[in-house]
Amino acid sequence: PNFLLDQIGTTIFTVMSALAVQHGAINLGQGFPDTDGPDDIIMAAADALKDGRNQYPPLTGVPELRAAVAAANRRFYGIEVDPASEVVVTSGATEAITACLMALLNPGDEVVLIEPLYDTYLPVVRMLGATARLVRLEPPDWVLPRAALEAAFGPKTKLLLLNSPMNPTGKVFSADELGFIAGLLHRHDAYAVCDEVYEHLIFDGLSHLPLMSLPGMRERCARIGSAGKTFSLTGWKIGYVTAPAHLATLIARAHQNLTFTTPPNLQRAVAIGLGKDDDYFLALGRDLARKRDLLGAGLRGIGFDVLASSGSYFITADFSPLGFEGDDVAFCRHITEHAGVAAIPVSAFYPADAPTRYARFAVCKRDSVLQEAIARLGAHF
Amino acid sequence: PNFLLDQIGTTIFTVMSALAVQHGAINLGQGFPDTDGPDDIIMAAADALKDGRNQYPPLTGVPELRAAVAAANRRFYGIEVDPASEVVVTSGATEAITACLMALLNPGDEVVLIEPLYDTYLPVVRMLGATARLVRLEPPDWVLPRAALEAAFGPKTKLLLLNSPMNPTGKVFSADELGFIAGLLHRHDAYAVCDEVYEHLIFDGLSHLPLMSLPGMRERCARIGSAGKTFSLTGWKIGYVTAPAHLATLIARAHQNLTFTTPPNLQRAVAIGLGKDDDYFLALGRDLARKRDLLGAGLRGIGFDVLASSGSYFITADFSPLGFEGDDVAFCRHITEHAGVAAIPVSAFYPADAPTRYARFAVCKRDSVLQEAIARLGAHF
Ligand SMILES: CSCCC(=O)C(=O)O
Ligand SMILES: CSCCC(=O)C(=O)O
Repeated sequence: PNFLLDQIGTTIFTVMSALAVQHGAINLGQGFPDTDGPDDIIMAAADALKDGRNQYPPLTGVPELRAAVAAANRRFYGIEVDPASEVVVTSGATEAITACLMALLNPGDEVVLIEPLYDTYLPVVRMLGATARLVRLEPPDWVLPRAALEAAFGPKTKLLLLNSPMNPTGKVFSADELGFIAGLLHRHDAYAVCDEVYEHLIFDGLSHLPLMSLPGMRERCARIGSAGKTFSLTGWKIGYVTAPAHLATLIARAHQNLTFTTPPNLQRAVAIGLGKDDDYFLALGRDLARKRDLLGAGLRGIGFDVLASSGSYFITADFSPLGFEGDDVAFCRHITEHAGVAAIPVSAFYPADAPTRYARFAVCKRDSVLQEAIARLGAHF
Repeated sequence: PNFLLDQIGTTIFTVMSALAVQHGAINLGQGFPDTDGPDDIIMAAADALKDGRNQYPPLTGVPELRAAVAAANRRFYGIEVDPASEVVVTSGATEAITACLMALLNPGDEVVLIEPLYDTYLPVVRMLGATARLVRLEPPDWVLPRAALEAAFGPKTKLLLLNSPMNPTGKVFSADELGFIAGLLHRHDAYAVCDEVYEHLIFDGLSHLPLMSLPGMRERCARIGSAGKTFSLTGWKIGYVTAPAHLATLIARAHQNLTFTTPPNLQRAVAIGLGKDDDYFLALGRDLARKRDLLGAGLRGIGFDVLASSGSYFITADFSPLGFEGDDVAFCRHITEHAGVAAIPVSAFYPADAPTRYARFAVCKRDSVLQEAIARLGAHF
């Protein structure tokens, strides 16, 4: 028998994490912090197990978390959201992305995707019988190629999937770029699924601007957030979608066939987390920016050409100045096995014709770990 | 724009639970216990939050839970399972079912489904571009119609989806029926996705027989279990698939696009739960059988014609002897609004041409709640 899924491999994040464990390497591959998030949120999750609310919560999430997501939309972006009809809690942002695509796409629809892209986007689009139109950002600046984007839109375009801050590039789309995108969506009567999981992991005094907050975009966007990323608890797998009610209804119908609901104790703890004061959220970006600078300076000192990153857990670096013979997959395997530092080959973010001289490093680790990684790479090259 | 998902409604379980809340009705609709499962498992989940393992666990589940699932397969069914390559932990059994269908089905494949059927099966099969061949069991005995099943298999048949113990019927497929099914799978080189979430909720001294344990079936079956059902913690959303390695690999690839991973603290607690002694598992079925008898006798006393149930959370009852004018949807709404007891219309388990005189009642509630439900229905009719 023939299985379509034979065509996709095990996700690069799992492959590199396993290789890192096998070789005792410092794991700067898969994007997760090496320190768990706030104690008070963790304790709230433990307490919430103990008061008899361990049965199915409502399909779209516990009322506390839906209210907290609505309040965060108002607080951070001035977006007014009805918690009863415009929020869907999901079992992580991965599920949220898949649920949004299932909700919005019919077979034959076209979807505009921006390369480099996260590795679940394309298999899900294909599974749904939709067609991807790819638009490529080029390193080192990852500027939006406006003419190419415009050309990718057509009469069959149903939606654009936008990731900002962007994995793996660290690009934060500018207000001007977002305005251009909004114009295209409006002109083509299309939707946007906005993967904004790194919304609070943003550097250098930039602030996150949701496409949804632009004029005319409120009704066209499904905006995805991640408690894992926002609270440094990536294993909890709590995501949330904010969308106009007519889309949220469809997203909930997809969700009911994917996981149906999400553990109530973790939802309740995340609701408490979203109520933290502004300092908590500002410190997230401030701390990560410092780690970006620390690792970036170390890699530059070794000879890497480190690209700018304005947000996310990641920096990307061109390793060609080091004189390594081989592509990015070979390079990332090599440093995992021989230098004891794991990274992700950026070609994993392209279905074809990928650039092959960039590696992605996660900066969301303790300073001492980043320093040790720099020392290991420095000793090796 | 046109959205395929407009064609499916909000799941009946959510609709009836909301109606129950609105009318202060006792909720014998959606299948969940009204008492949380064992304290020691809940405490283990709380403790497991506190030792710094809140980041992404492995794609296929934490090692403790994969080992426990393998051990449970051996203990209960004599099935030998490699925990490293033959177990995939999912975010609930709903995700497990969807992941198995995604893993095994290509567009154009045929799937044999048995009516009445759970409401996620058909939308997922359709989303994948596969074609369902429906075989119908008839009340009151729900006997497998062998000729019809045989006729549903053909050259394009990729798999059968089998639910035993079965929702909503409470049917437990006999060894003889399973043998007949195994013969068809063998003859047509087809697979089975075995939704066995009620494996431990089985009555009258019957014991659960996985299709996977039959000769020749080890390599053809993906067997799905549910911690929610087995430990009375339906909100935790921990499922597990046992499958031969070549299928488990594909299922993990589907899982990576659905939720990727499942909260580690809940996984670790479920691993402890699966190690409980035999008494724990036997008591589950014994207690539920008593509740089935309690509610069944009450409904019979009121005039319902209650069908036999050998497993699951449910009994179904023919309400036509009560003289109600209207179909099962009207009946379930009526008793929710006017008698203060919610149930699920069995027609929700059929895509078309459903029987319309049966209601499904959940028996997994405290005795006092079941008694009050009987009293309310008795006062009304
Ligand atoms: C879901 S595992 C990968 C985590 C992540 O987003 C990344 O490393 O890019
Ligand atoms: C996932 S909500 C429904 C629970 C259930 O399995 C049922 O009530 O049939």
